Amino acid sequence: MLKNDLILRAARGEEVERTPVWLMRQAGRILPEYRSVRAKLSGFKELVETPELAAEVTIQPVDLLGVDAAIIFSDILVIPEAMGLTYEMVEKKGPHFPKTIDSAKDLEQLKVAKPEDLQYTIDAIKITKNELNGRVPIIGFAGAPWTIFSYMIEGGGSKTFSKARKMLYNDPVLSEELLGMITESTISYLKAQVAAGANMVQIFDSWAGVLPPAHYTRFSLKYIEQIAAAITEVPVTVFAKGAYFALRDMADVSCRTVGLDWNMNVEEARILLPNKTLQGNLDPCALYGSFDQVKEEAKNMLDKFKGHSHIANLGHGVYPDTDPEKVKCFIETVKSY
Amino acid sequence: MLKNDLILRAARGEEVERTPVWLMRQAGRILPEYRSVRAKLSGFKELVETPELAAEVTIQPVDLLGVDAAIIFSDILVIPEAMGLTYEMVEKKGPHFPKTIDSAKDLEQLKVAKPEDLQYTIDAIKITKNELNGRVPIIGFAGAPWTIFSYMIEGGGSKTFSKARKMLYNDPVLSEELLGMITESTISYLKAQVAAGANMVQIFDSWAGVLPPAHYTRFSLKYIEQIAAAITEVPVTVFAKGAYFALRDMADVSCRTVGLDWNMNVEEARILLPNKTLQGNLDPCALYGSFDQVKEEAKNMLDKFKGHSHIANLGHGVYPDTDPEKVKCFIETVKSY
Repeated sequence: MLKNDLILRAARGEEVERTPVWLMRQAGRILPEYRSVRAKLSGFKELVETPELAAEVTIQPVDLLGVDAAIIFSDILVIPEAMGLTYEMVEKKGPHFPKTIDSAKDLEQLKVAKPEDLQYTIDAIKITKNELNGRVPIIGFAGAPWTIFSYMIEGGGSKTFSKARKMLYNDPVLSEELLGMITESTISYLKAQVAAGANMVQIFDSWAGVLPPAHYTRFSLKYIEQIAAAITEVPVTVFAKGAYFALRDMADVSCRTVGLDWNMNVEEARILLPNKTLQGNLDPCALYGSFDQVKEEAKNMLDKFKGHSHIANLGHGVYPDTDPEKVKCFIETVKSY
Repeated sequence: MLKNDLILRAARGEEVERTPVWLMRQAGRILPEYRSVRAKLSGFKELVETPELAAEVTIQPVDLLGVDAAIIFSDILVIPEAMGLTYEMVEKKGPHFPKTIDSAKDLEQLKVAKPEDLQYTIDAIKITKNELNGRVPIIGFAGAPWTIFSYMIEGGGSKTFSKARKMLYNDPVLSEELLGMITESTISYLKAQVAAGANMVQIFDSWAGVLPPAHYTRFSLKYIEQIAAAITEVPVTVFAKGAYFALRDMADVSCRTVGLDWNMNVEEARILLPNKTLQGNLDPCALYGSFDQVKEEAKNMLDKFKGHSHIANLGHGVYPDTDPEKVKCFIETVKSY
């Protein structure tokens, strides 16, 4: 029994009293309370893999910021790890895979992940569910197969992901096999998240923007659709960062909500996606402004979505050096709009 | 008297016997002949600042790859340097500014650059002109003011350029003052390039994609238009990487040619920009494919532009690990299409 189900109703395109609001990366990017939990641990992964602590930092933004949903604290790279490819989270540098997938032989070392391989996240959701006691819904999530594939081939972040993109030209068969394995792993993982209590799920395609449109259709959107079509129990959100060119195609994806970058034209998105709820899309840098600027920018953003099903958010994850008071100001502006 | 003026006619929207072709970063990213010139020097900047050698590597792709234009070997960061902010080019890491612009006091240390501050590039163009002896046109270039501004504030490359974007919120007055100084410097620099022999010029807005549309209009496009409107002597190309959202606005810019990323939809660009020549937009990763794939991808790309004024190119600079034989294959496919 949810006391606040605004975000679920907005996702389903139903009437809402006010626009719901949450932030990507709200769990742990900016709060001193998060940092104090984190400081006691060996690293980021220990936090991801310790359900009680993951639940604690998941709930912090609900208590401290007043958001309308809790997104489970985890990482998209738990999937490759569960498939057999370990990652390290290097402080201030980001993820690194000591081993990458270069050939069919490497692929043989991988398996399709089972939810029990990711029991720590499932347990974290259960604990969160219990502790939240219906205050707000829980958002589960996973990376889009193309984005996960990129990391598994590239071995870490990259400006161009040219190694991953090269694989699509040089070995489309291997590419599709790996994408299929990631997709299968992701579907059962998201279903387990839902069974554990996630009320909606989001698919993050962080590197959507580096693909040419034909490759995006073939190597990314196809697998996103398989996932979105498989998750019938709860509303699905797709956030394909940088995929302006694919906005039109999102109309045909079996998701309820489409996330928008801060550089996307809201007016155009509304025309192209009349039947989708839209999520976003304030420039994360707008929160560097004064309190008056934050209020003004937030209101301008809300004006643009007026009359369309909308979940307020930034157009990207909150930047780590953002003042939590400015985040609160953003959230309160949405709530009192 | 140019023996090959295909690219200029294509830029002006005139009839051409075949589509002209060149590559961004063709001067020096992939050729062993470039590397052997470079190996004798202390670093990248010495090459940029030595006119005879800059001219030599400018002409190499004309001789070795058969492109239809030579782009002068230089860097967009010569402008901030001429304004008083020195940069270093760190091997395998990219540009770094030891000092950045953080306040009005920092701004006072800068001046509007004069062409004579960049005499080495002007001289390199003159030498190139002489040595090319009319074989192909010379392309001059500069960074768009927003991109230059980003580096001057941020101090180097960045995934988000959040420091530069923060400045737009926190001090729009200082931002506009600096953008104005960069614009003024760039106009006289490009005019000097044209006077020295550049037959066309390109403005690179490499970080266009990180701005929300309203900021792009105010802090980038406005200054691009000032430059494009001032360069009346030769055709101007604008390449705003990642600015899918601004494609429509490019119709009103005083440039002849608009460069397209590899992830832009050609069909849409043709509709939005019926009176512009379009440049691009093969995925640079397509050159990692087999020779047959390169030919097929190049032909597919040419098919998409058929009937529209077009300058063939990649949708970004050629990647450094590209096989020069694949580049030749791409160029020959365009020439024999």
